[in-house]
Amino acid sequence: MTAGADREVSRGGSRDVPDLVRRARAGDARSVARLITLVESGGPQLPQIAAELAGHTGHALVVGLTGAPGVGKSTTTSELVRVLRGRNLRIGVLAVDPSSPFTGGAILGDRVRMQDHATDPGVYIRSMSSRGHLGGLSSATPAAVRVLDGVGCDVVLIETVGVGQAEVEVAGLADTTVVLLAPGMGDAVQAVKAGILEIADIFVVNKADRDGADGTVRDLTGMLALTATAPGGWRPPVLRTVAAHGDGLDDLVTAIERHRDWLAGRGELTARRARRVAAEVEAIAIGTLRGRISSLRGGTLPAELAAEVLAGRLDPYAAADRLLAELTRSTPTPR
Amino acid sequence: MTAGADREVSRGGSRDVPDLVRRARAGDARSVARLITLVESGGPQLPQIAAELAGHTGHALVVGLTGAPGVGKSTTTSELVRVLRGRNLRIGVLAVDPSSPFTGGAILGDRVRMQDHATDPGVYIRSMSSRGHLGGLSSATPAAVRVLDGVGCDVVLIETVGVGQAEVEVAGLADTTVVLLAPGMGDAVQAVKAGILEIADIFVVNKADRDGADGTVRDLTGMLALTATAPGGWRPPVLRTVAAHGDGLDDLVTAIERHRDWLAGRGELTARRARRVAAEVEAIAIGTLRGRISSLRGGTLPAELAAEVLAGRLDPYAAADRLLAELTRSTPTPR
Repeated sequence: MTAGADREVSRGGSRDVPDLVRRARAGDARSVARLITLVESGGPQLPQIAAELAGHTGHALVVGLTGAPGVGKSTTTSELVRVLRGRNLRIGVLAVDPSSPFTGGAILGDRVRMQDHATDPGVYIRSMSSRGHLGGLSSATPAAVRVLDGVGCDVVLIETVGVGQAEVEVAGLADTTVVLLAPGMGDAVQAVKAGILEIADIFVVNKADRDGADGTVRDLTGMLALTATAPGGWRPPVLRTVAAHGDGLDDLVTAIERHRDWLAGRGELTARRARRVAAEVEAIAIGTLRGRISSLRGGTLPAELAAEVLAGRLDPYAAADRLLAELTRSTPTPR
Repeated sequence: MTAGADREVSRGGSRDVPDLVRRARAGDARSVARLITLVESGGPQLPQIAAELAGHTGHALVVGLTGAPGVGKSTTTSELVRVLRGRNLRIGVLAVDPSSPFTGGAILGDRVRMQDHATDPGVYIRSMSSRGHLGGLSSATPAAVRVLDGVGCDVVLIETVGVGQAEVEVAGLADTTVVLLAPGMGDAVQAVKAGILEIADIFVVNKADRDGADGTVRDLTGMLALTATAPGGWRPPVLRTVAAHGDGLDDLVTAIERHRDWLAGRGELTARRARRVAAEVEAIAIGTLRGRISSLRGGTLPAELAAEVLAGRLDPYAAADRLLAELTRSTPTPR
């Protein structure tokens, strides 16, 4: 079995995909939604969708927006969309919800404001669950970004609700990561603990009309001053917004553009994207290998080896060696 | 290159390991600590350590203790150790700390009470960082459990500080998972969100002398009553403790024993362990494959393929196929 034979597409699906991509690229929102549904469900059309999009990707700027619950991420995202639409850019929004790994139930966020853009044909908005990948981004997120990029979005915004893992992962996926904070949440100190200082390209103190905003800005600026920045390195700006009133969003767009220009000027934009793509390719390859391992000897081998380990006749490393030997035996050398 | 050749041990390390295991099994705490350090550092001795321990594992009952910060996990763990020591059992404790994925700095917990056991030769206590595996358990945790099991511990307690991913992962590692809550933290409702109901074998409402304890027990019992339990299934008990005064710990030990007997009586203890070992073996195999992929063509292939994808000449799935083809080509069929 060669690598390619792993993922045969059903005849029905395979004929539809080029059509779907053509219509999505022509601006049909339902086709875009259908493509994202296909990549999110991890169906057999995934490789074909990727192949059809291949010549069209790499145009979109990918911006991650993250922060603790209650800082105003959805409002900020919505207002950011408004400003970017004013510049006649096409925008994709992926809102990644944390969900229980067991119930699969997404925790509903306040996305009411997003409905302002629901009828705008230049904006694609999509909620994605984080199911299947504990607490972090769904493994389909890179593929969904690729769809929005490939169908012609100029900017793809990834909004991650929640804290911790998703925040760190979004930084690996985005060209520019915006971290939102709000006054009076003790966030500045928490930010350091969670490793946020390291992932943020831009800080936004939202709800800047509230008491304590000056303190939050001051704390953050002070901590950033203590962080070593390489000569010529990027020093994250600390902006103030009141997203609910639309204040400060132009400055945020300017900061995002400045960061993109800084990245591009040093070849860092391509370097970041190359690292991201390399990780994506490796993840796909590992996923395929994982599938092959699970199905060795009709799926019985891992359990047989586990029984040997439990009986004390084999240790886990020796068992893993047997798994790998069987994997190699069952995979003929290609061409 | 066959699978076994991936992990040659240095001659120095390989001669030391049998000695170290012999001394650790004889009760030398420093040798136990050294073994855990070796498995935690992921050094080349790992397979040999596993091989030396292979005939001696499978005896220990593995108990996970988890819950939000502030519920009294460390105090409960410490008191649980006291009660189990009173029954003349040998105990291993692994305290897994969340740490920033970037700074690697562990957040210090309140382990003062643990020092009560510091000079007891029948107790091994070890802090492990969760570094290298975002927010969750360290990938070395299963290997560390195996060490404590193999050197003769009757019970291995894994205490996970933090919330979310680590809580879920510890359930995959333990025979019995104890979830701690405290009154007045709104925990009962949070517990449902985080998928805690599904992972808990035993609930403990600690600080049960505080206001609100009755309400927490009532909420939890109510929610459990709504959860479907298969006929003959395990229904998690809800216990009350005041760990700071040592109250209720005997009941907790009794509940743990009851759960173990229930598991053993249905063959579920072996089934859980078999699933755990199968996952461990697959993780080791995948880790080896990951290493092989990263080093293909001297480590340049992933980056070369990423450049092709960025240029639009290849899609990520086709690139992954090339990676897999090259992997197969570079791995001769064994024997």
